[in-house]
Amino acid sequence: METNSTVDFMLNRKSIRKYKAEAPSDDILEAIVRAGQQAPFAFQTCSLILCRNIKKHPFKAPWMFTVCVDSHKFELIMAKRGWKMVINNLAYLLLAFQDAAYAAENMVIAAESFGLGSCYLGQAPYVADKIAEEYNLPPRVFPLVQLIMGYPAENPPPRPRFPLDYFLFEDKYSQASNEQIEAAMQVMDEGYKSQDYYKAINYMIPLEGVKEEKYDFETYSWTEHISRKLGLWLEDPQQILEQMKKRGFEIPV
Amino acid sequence: METNSTVDFMLNRKSIRKYKAEAPSDDILEAIVRAGQQAPFAFQTCSLILCRNIKKHPFKAPWMFTVCVDSHKFELIMAKRGWKMVINNLAYLLLAFQDAAYAAENMVIAAESFGLGSCYLGQAPYVADKIAEEYNLPPRVFPLVQLIMGYPAENPPPRPRFPLDYFLFEDKYSQASNEQIEAAMQVMDEGYKSQDYYKAINYMIPLEGVKEEKYDFETYSWTEHISRKLGLWLEDPQQILEQMKKRGFEIPV
Repeated sequence: METNSTVDFMLNRKSIRKYKAEAPSDDILEAIVRAGQQAPFAFQTCSLILCRNIKKHPFKAPWMFTVCVDSHKFELIMAKRGWKMVINNLAYLLLAFQDAAYAAENMVIAAESFGLGSCYLGQAPYVADKIAEEYNLPPRVFPLVQLIMGYPAENPPPRPRFPLDYFLFEDKYSQASNEQIEAAMQVMDEGYKSQDYYKAINYMIPLEGVKEEKYDFETYSWTEHISRKLGLWLEDPQQILEQMKKRGFEIPV
Repeated sequence: METNSTVDFMLNRKSIRKYKAEAPSDDILEAIVRAGQQAPFAFQTCSLILCRNIKKHPFKAPWMFTVCVDSHKFELIMAKRGWKMVINNLAYLLLAFQDAAYAAENMVIAAESFGLGSCYLGQAPYVADKIAEEYNLPPRVFPLVQLIMGYPAENPPPRPRFPLDYFLFEDKYSQASNEQIEAAMQVMDEGYKSQDYYKAINYMIPLEGVKEEKYDFETYSWTEHISRKLGLWLEDPQQILEQMKKRGFEIPV
């Protein structure tokens, strides 16, 4: 496989949950934000709110960006041109989530290139009302994800990924064989176990009485962890529908 | 502003719509796909379908990736572990769209680092049924976006972006002043005009009888173009809701 320094930044990237107190320079900040802004997809529906109040951030990161889908600022432009937004909210969010995510990921890789670490925080949509209050977000601005950054004070290994044949298909999607499923599980589970990942964070998702707990840190690993997230949490869509509606994105309208 | 080669790849990136016939090597392919796979967010809900049949691609690009949200392959793993997916579809898609978009954007930047160009094709969700048939996608696999790549046979300039103060806020979202709105419009419109962008593609979005056409290529530019997209198209959510439902993602269930 060919590689180069940019690809290496991506291959070696991992989420950082311990940061040095030293804040990176404003020159680096500008480069990271500009790199994000130049991301493709071209609707420019994304806005960032930067907070440097280290006391408010998880893992004491010097910077926290709230990455928002922002329909509001383009509506101001449309009004000047005598237009009104008519695209339905689902279609709008489908493009705007991509726009915002492409910008955010550019920022993550730009950060790596300056020796900074980062971590996405995925809870923002579920506390969108609180975030909107904190940052004074107008209607039609929805926080998609938060992103913390700073110089890393830990150096964990990159995390495992599925075998390539469980990610990339050519010409046709092919149904995974039993062997492929088991190989994919093994790479992930043995990989996370060999890094003592769950033991180090001392966390297994509680079964909440749904099942009897039969795992310990010798046996618990990635596929069980993600299965619990997707098999236990967020069954009811009301919470996310209400958060979206409060922010002016009623679904499916 | 500080910079480096990785950031420069991002700042200089633009969509490429003309490609050389020469296909990049499989070593480069593997590096780009692995860079995508290593993207953060960690649910690994993304699958790629690669098609190298140049005759089927827009702009004759040697590679086209269909970037899919793939719940199916993790459901196979959950079944082995005695779990069923219960997360509601909207919450699932909220995380899966990000997962897939972070992977895709890593691929875009990895491609730049090898001298390749790329272009996102955003129509996939609206023709999801046709794509599913073409690539034999099982239920619960949804094509989010397509991404073409290859060696560029054109070298357009990077496209303009909003002024930084229309993208980045600190501590509080601040309402744009009239001057800021107009400055944002001017940067985009004069920027695209100076690149003869719409004149070169010879395309203005037709007004479909909604308004009288008062623009020509001397006056038509980015804010008018995007206003028409968002002000004319996709008002009815049925099309996207049906495509999602056909692929096993009924919203809001």
